Amino acid sequence: MNNRKKPETEISNPARRKLLAGGLAASGAAAALAIGGRQAAAAAPDPAITKIQDWNRYLGDGVDERPYGFPSEHEKEVVRRSVSWLTADPKSSVNFTPLHELDGIITPNGLCFERHHGGIADIDPAQHRLMINGMVDTPLVFTMEDLKRFPRENRVYFLECAANSGMEWRGAQLNGCQYTHGMVHNVMYTGVPLKHILNEAGIKSGGKWILPEGADASGMTRSIPLEKALDDCLVAFKMNGEALRPEQGYPVRLVVPGWEGNMWVKWLRRIEIGDQPWQMREETSKYTDLMEDGKARRFTWTMDVKSVITNPSPQAPITHGKGQTVVTGVAWSGHGKIKRVDVSIDGGRNWETARLDGPSLSKSLHRFYHDFNWDGSELLLQSRAIDEAGNIQPTKNELRAARGQNSIYHNNGIQTWHVKADGSAENVEVS
Amino acid sequence: MNNRKKPETEISNPARRKLLAGGLAASGAAAALAIGGRQAAAAAPDPAITKIQDWNRYLGDGVDERPYGFPSEHEKEVVRRSVSWLTADPKSSVNFTPLHELDGIITPNGLCFERHHGGIADIDPAQHRLMINGMVDTPLVFTMEDLKRFPRENRVYFLECAANSGMEWRGAQLNGCQYTHGMVHNVMYTGVPLKHILNEAGIKSGGKWILPEGADASGMTRSIPLEKALDDCLVAFKMNGEALRPEQGYPVRLVVPGWEGNMWVKWLRRIEIGDQPWQMREETSKYTDLMEDGKARRFTWTMDVKSVITNPSPQAPITHGKGQTVVTGVAWSGHGKIKRVDVSIDGGRNWETARLDGPSLSKSLHRFYHDFNWDGSELLLQSRAIDEAGNIQPTKNELRAARGQNSIYHNNGIQTWHVKADGSAENVEVS
Repeated sequence: MNNRKKPETEISNPARRKLLAGGLAASGAAAALAIGGRQAAAAAPDPAITKIQDWNRYLGDGVDERPYGFPSEHEKEVVRRSVSWLTADPKSSVNFTPLHELDGIITPNGLCFERHHGGIADIDPAQHRLMINGMVDTPLVFTMEDLKRFPRENRVYFLECAANSGMEWRGAQLNGCQYTHGMVHNVMYTGVPLKHILNEAGIKSGGKWILPEGADASGMTRSIPLEKALDDCLVAFKMNGEALRPEQGYPVRLVVPGWEGNMWVKWLRRIEIGDQPWQMREETSKYTDLMEDGKARRFTWTMDVKSVITNPSPQAPITHGKGQTVVTGVAWSGHGKIKRVDVSIDGGRNWETARLDGPSLSKSLHRFYHDFNWDGSELLLQSRAIDEAGNIQPTKNELRAARGQNSIYHNNGIQTWHVKADGSAENVEVS
Repeated sequence: MNNRKKPETEISNPARRKLLAGGLAASGAAAALAIGGRQAAAAAPDPAITKIQDWNRYLGDGVDERPYGFPSEHEKEVVRRSVSWLTADPKSSVNFTPLHELDGIITPNGLCFERHHGGIADIDPAQHRLMINGMVDTPLVFTMEDLKRFPRENRVYFLECAANSGMEWRGAQLNGCQYTHGMVHNVMYTGVPLKHILNEAGIKSGGKWILPEGADASGMTRSIPLEKALDDCLVAFKMNGEALRPEQGYPVRLVVPGWEGNMWVKWLRRIEIGDQPWQMREETSKYTDLMEDGKARRFTWTMDVKSVITNPSPQAPITHGKGQTVVTGVAWSGHGKIKRVDVSIDGGRNWETARLDGPSLSKSLHRFYHDFNWDGSELLLQSRAIDEAGNIQPTKNELRAARGQNSIYHNNGIQTWHVKADGSAENVEVS
């Protein structure tokens, strides 16, 4: 992926070092470093300071080096990660978004979580077709170029797998928000409202459901009510400005805002219209929620209000010691915008309202911050989101009381990180 | 960059082909394809249809293949491009954003235009420091970790080089919006408001200007009024959620919303506070606007209201023939939000209001569309943006009348594409 060249030499630069030190001395600075009004770190001369001006001794790469850019070598640990024991084969598995390494609300395309049921289809867009059939006046087949002649929209939406946080149903399982909450991403889609395409074909009287079908080896199919299809679904071909990535359904996928990710059929090749749901594998044996009494909740499509603190967290400990500390995370709801996020540092006994920052968009991630002065004592960090429909993120125990522990889906319970005095953090549960 | 494997075989699938054809026949479809209510393309059996269901015969890549994702091989022409004759060396040159390949308002990080004056600095963030000195109460040195302890903000801003469209001053020069307008990108930045950092150091009485300095080989420096620094400038370390890319100033850059890109100092290592501008190279011999009378306009920082049609354009001709056609482009202004965009198909004699779509954010790109029924005749396509401050994008001749043709900077004139009957397009001027 990366052809980054190494620096050629490591020679220090005494002249520059002297100048810098002189500059600091002349201005009377004792190199005391205060953050947010508080003294912190690096009060003594810093060995690193002798190297900080060295970068400008070397001409760097020119514009001929990277037609398509890539991250710094220093960010090589910022990657999607999978868990080998989670599924039988990597072709039918999950690669989690590194939420603890991100900020803002946009997930960069290279880091969007991926979940496949038959591997990543490798599709030539010039050969790809989308067929509309079933209970329609005129069955139609569209090329990619045809699709791009309809009016387009651009919307930022989160996509969350129904199984996100699934292993938390039976207790704290995985040590890091990448694994507990990393089956979510948030990008700006460009696409055609599905209603335009369906209206072009003409829905016959009695048509009540659609069945989008993927062109991958799993032939993914899900039943979706026509009402949702005509409301805000998009047939999308771009994400964050550029073509969909192969693992996100290149060249075209369905966008089903606020609903579970499995319904956002990738590599979309066909949409059938019918008068009842099809009862496909992924809406019967999978993506249904088995209750305590042996019955299953079905058609639980909407992703409920949820949040997680991304920093600090097990993969992102506090390394700067006590003092001014930024706690941050993301919140989202399939019911609309996030209205408020609360943060607790004592396991839910007391709550403070967090600061929401950045664009507030419906069915999108929202970024929140809680800036506070850490006294170095142990913390039980939690966040609790409230959406504009008035839904409040529940505790895991409240969820278990309502639904038991058989399911792996739709766990939107409050997450707890135990931050220790040394700044390290662990996934725990509080009762 | 890309380790994508080729498909293993090209065997056709007669069984699947038959099924598909049968499905179409059974539903009575004549494969007539209508777009937006009009007949278009592919009315006859399509040879490609025999291949369209083949993708699902192969298991694709699994989640172990791409920890950090990359675009499809079919998108390999979607890259930044440079012009060899523009500067003496690629280490001091420009790589243009492929605007004609993008949609929405977010520029993906791998395609953001880059302009360097001494190549791309290769910086270890653990060693990097930011110094605040000059007319301050307490000179300070910050590590990257220190910076991340201040309260953060997330904002989407366009960054435009002052020389964008510079060659258009003396007539239509380059055949494609990537080259005429591709020195602009638009991302969500995460950073610390500069005012927090300056307040921490304490500005001495009489301090009126700041001088940000880059750690690259060019040691980029620009004078910025303190009023702007305390208003909306950010010290940013993330773009579109992830760390800044090296070519965008990794690990930290200045964000100067709405102002010319050269002032957004990359690889930021020092900010000096003074009582007057420093008269550096990049604000005297460069980035000043030479007028007809031999005098130069200086401190022309704000990027004025501007727009360009990205599709169709010389690099993105109309290939589908007449009928329903999407005209799209981007508009932006350093003065705030875009209020309206007009589109003309006859070289500015008649105008229609375009449809703005997607988030409308201050000092950000805005996406516009003009969906119309092309009769196949020649077009002189133009767009004209109006911002919330009431500024109207001028014609190039209006700009020339006011400022002559000596400068290469701050050309926000209306762009014209001559679309021919075959759908190809050319950069032209209309008088």
